[in-house]
Amino acid sequence: MPIRNIAVGRPEEATHPDTLKAGLAEFISTFIFVFAGSGSGIAYNKLTSNGDATPAGLIAAAIAHAFALFVAVSVGANISGGHVNPAVTFGAFIGGNITLLRGIVYIIAQLLGSVVASFLLAFVTGLSVPAFGLSSGVGVGNALVLEIVMTFGLVYTVYATAVDPKKGNLGIIAPIAIGFIVGANILVGGAFDGASMNPAVSFGPAVASWSWDNHWIYWIGPLIGGGLAGLIYEVVFISHTHEQLPTTDY
Amino acid sequence: MPIRNIAVGRPEEATHPDTLKAGLAEFISTFIFVFAGSGSGIAYNKLTSNGDATPAGLIAAAIAHAFALFVAVSVGANISGGHVNPAVTFGAFIGGNITLLRGIVYIIAQLLGSVVASFLLAFVTGLSVPAFGLSSGVGVGNALVLEIVMTFGLVYTVYATAVDPKKGNLGIIAPIAIGFIVGANILVGGAFDGASMNPAVSFGPAVASWSWDNHWIYWIGPLIGGGLAGLIYEVVFISHTHEQLPTTDY
Amino acid sequence: MPIRNIAVGRPEEATHPDTLKAGLAEFISTFIFVFAGSGSGIAYNKLTSNGDATPAGLIAAAIAHAFALFVAVSVGANISGGHVNPAVTFGAFIGGNITLLRGIVYIIAQLLGSVVASFLLAFVTGLSVPAFGLSSGVGVGNALVLEIVMTFGLVYTVYATAVDPKKGNLGIIAPIAIGFIVGANILVGGAFDGASMNPAVSFGPAVASWSWDNHWIYWIGPLIGGGLAGLIYEVVFISHTHEQLPTTDY
Amino acid sequence: MPIRNIAVGRPEEATHPDTLKAGLAEFISTFIFVFAGSGSGIAYNKLTSNGDATPAGLIAAAIAHAFALFVAVSVGANISGGHVNPAVTFGAFIGGNITLLRGIVYIIAQLLGSVVASFLLAFVTGLSVPAFGLSSGVGVGNALVLEIVMTFGLVYTVYATAVDPKKGNLGIIAPIAIGFIVGANILVGGAFDGASMNPAVSFGPAVASWSWDNHWIYWIGPLIGGGLAGLIYEVVFISHTHEQLPTTDY
Repeated sequence: MPIRNIAVGRPEEATHPDTLKAGLAEFISTFIFVFAGSGSGIAYNKLTSNGDATPAGLIAAAIAHAFALFVAVSVGANISGGHVNPAVTFGAFIGGNITLLRGIVYIIAQLLGSVVASFLLAFVTGLSVPAFGLSSGVGVGNALVLEIVMTFGLVYTVYATAVDPKKGNLGIIAPIAIGFIVGANILVGGAFDGASMNPAVSFGPAVASWSWDNHWIYWIGPLIGGGLAGLIYEVVFISHTHEQLPTTDY
Repeated sequence: MPIRNIAVGRPEEATHPDTLKAGLAEFISTFIFVFAGSGSGIAYNKLTSNGDATPAGLIAAAIAHAFALFVAVSVGANISGGHVNPAVTFGAFIGGNITLLRGIVYIIAQLLGSVVASFLLAFVTGLSVPAFGLSSGVGVGNALVLEIVMTFGLVYTVYATAVDPKKGNLGIIAPIAIGFIVGANILVGGAFDGASMNPAVSFGPAVASWSWDNHWIYWIGPLIGGGLAGLIYEVVFISHTHEQLPTTDY
Repeated sequence: MPIRNIAVGRPEEATHPDTLKAGLAEFISTFIFVFAGSGSGIAYNKLTSNGDATPAGLIAAAIAHAFALFVAVSVGANISGGHVNPAVTFGAFIGGNITLLRGIVYIIAQLLGSVVASFLLAFVTGLSVPAFGLSSGVGVGNALVLEIVMTFGLVYTVYATAVDPKKGNLGIIAPIAIGFIVGANILVGGAFDGASMNPAVSFGPAVASWSWDNHWIYWIGPLIGGGLAGLIYEVVFISHTHEQLPTTDY
Repeated sequence: MPIRNIAVGRPEEATHPDTLKAGLAEFISTFIFVFAGSGSGIAYNKLTSNGDATPAGLIAAAIAHAFALFVAVSVGANISGGHVNPAVTFGAFIGGNITLLRGIVYIIAQLLGSVVASFLLAFVTGLSVPAFGLSSGVGVGNALVLEIVMTFGLVYTVYATAVDPKKGNLGIIAPIAIGFIVGANILVGGAFDGASMNPAVSFGPAVASWSWDNHWIYWIGPLIGGGLAGLIYEVVFISHTHEQLPTTDY
């Protein structure tokens, strides 16, 4: 039963030094990721005077996100597990790999990191931070399914390379795999709904630019996709009892 | 003799839980790969209003396929060996590294994963999934040899980094090597015949768009190239008895 | 106390063969990095006849710097620790991981490597080496904060993957992480202030082209960001005594 | 003395099965590398109707070469050491890491692999294989120094990550470093002289297109740069006796 070890966690856990350190690590990792990811979009707007998206722009976004997420996961790996994403934390919770309290600390830290990165980007560039939204011709249903599918792939990758106790040498390349699946998916979804796969990534720019159109898609989609991946991987591919924390171990 | 341990496999093998789990892993890995790979082509068409292929488009395709195949191989590695490609499964069979029954389960799962990814892409994007085909000025013979040569390189890479018992530390970077050889070859063959190197990759889009012109090239070419690589590597470079399953071990 | 083991170093240290070898390694690594990094900018100017910066140009710069820094760090890793950057050396000094004398040898070697690379680039290309500067609309304060933030991310990455005694397997991918965070940040900052994150990288082109406008930003920004990262990581995340040299160990 | 163990090799060595297997591995690795590298140039010409070189074209060339060389080195690593380059073989010889006879077998195999790849490219694409040459405004002296400097960086990287007995974990990422330094240097030198760094890479296209203008530069430059790197690394950074074969061990 994958839900066997979901726990609320003891109240003192949220203020435990280790939990706070992990929260700080999530904050810094998400900050680094969003600064480079959203920042590359602002740089594109600067260079093209807010021109239309082009394949070169999509490539720049894909590389910036892939490289920065790889780094963000790596630098957090030994302290917090390097989630950098509420959907990953939620998938870990669904699979019974993190307690509720600790998960909440992680998610708050991720959201704060994204918000601070977004405001700092607005300051250093003097330009607005582009919020996530749907391209013309893309419906809400399409975008929702797109986010579900892409985040399923991302969290499935996290499970297979970083959570699975049988991962072996894959643990060494786990941060690369996590960064690259996001980079690859941006080359698909970036042209349709911005390809978030991560509520924190959409949240910061939404706050900084105060634009909330369809923002819920970037929460519901990733949480469904991530939860589904955690559940399926845990039920089908992991069959024995495993330790609870940290959820990822490279 | 490399053909020493080719076996039909016991009938119960096809329904053995491990074989079914491996099949599911191949299904999900191929799904992830095709979703990003073919999806990046649809995104290109979206951004350029079906404009002509350009070097930037080729780069986007190469990165999407390289990153996604690296991930697809990694996430499947410990469960199914991460073939993600009927030509790899066939090359493994020719080299005596997988039984016939298990190989058939793999190939069916790979084809299904590609078909589901293609239909889902059509839904989320609202656009058609581009089928593989020959560029103007490219003959059937040229494309066939191109697919043979490129797939030879791919399956040779699989053998050297993932199958060879002497692979050592190379096993850690095997998924990267497998992803990157496909990315590099797309920068060549993508301009001439789409650079499939993988019957499953061509099959899904062909079903979804129901276009079968020259589709056989994307089966015969990769199977010849993959079989040849398996045979040569096994005969020349692997000289001692090895275990049969799993074929790849990172 | 992170400053517990900052030492001036014994006078003979600066001429100790190991220190000189490490200095030579820093010289060659920085040379390789600057040759590819600044050289890619000259190549862009050649191909576009000094055209405006475009997303494709930013991608070329990001890949050239990411790949070359990864290599520069790797080849120096076992000899000097592969700093390749006065801000990294300064961050290591602030965190108590290198002595003052050895640090000075490193920084002189890095600056020399960059100067020689810049003059050699001017010779082989017959073109001028572009100095770092602010894009139109970017103020001094914006650029300074940008350099601080980006270098913080870089040196934090160095600490988490290469210095932290708990780094474990992350050490294997440390050079990749260090190269990729610079590549990702160039896709942001490259459009605004050139994205140096490294005083040596700006110094060589400034000497070769003898243009010093706002040059101080590329010293003060990285040193503040790097020092801050070293201090925070050491105080918060590293809690036990560690050995002093070499600072990075892959 | 680095030249202590340069040996001519026993006459029977050239026909020893291991030497022949290593030669076949060099042939296949160089074939894979040149097929993707030169092929990406032909694909660029196809897509742009022989248009001028652009930054996007340079990026495509850099990625194709970086990815394919990484693969070529990896697949040959355990059999021949994965030289894939007469300049690397020469640098290994100068450093006393390969015998003369075995080195000659390697170089012949590399040249043959490049020639076969070039003719096959001409067949499958129906287009001519572009030979290496100097861009307008680039003198012979500039190009020669450029090839020397870039190949120095490449062979220095080979020594530090693959030959040096102290390389440790760097061996795992050695093929990546070797591929990436070539990719980074192409983003510089590609706009000026094609950025060969490898006599075999220039030789095949020269034979297939029968154009030999300034071809000697692509032999003399890399051999000087590679030899210099081997000599310096061996004298300065490697101080103890090491085993002779295989020269690279990942």
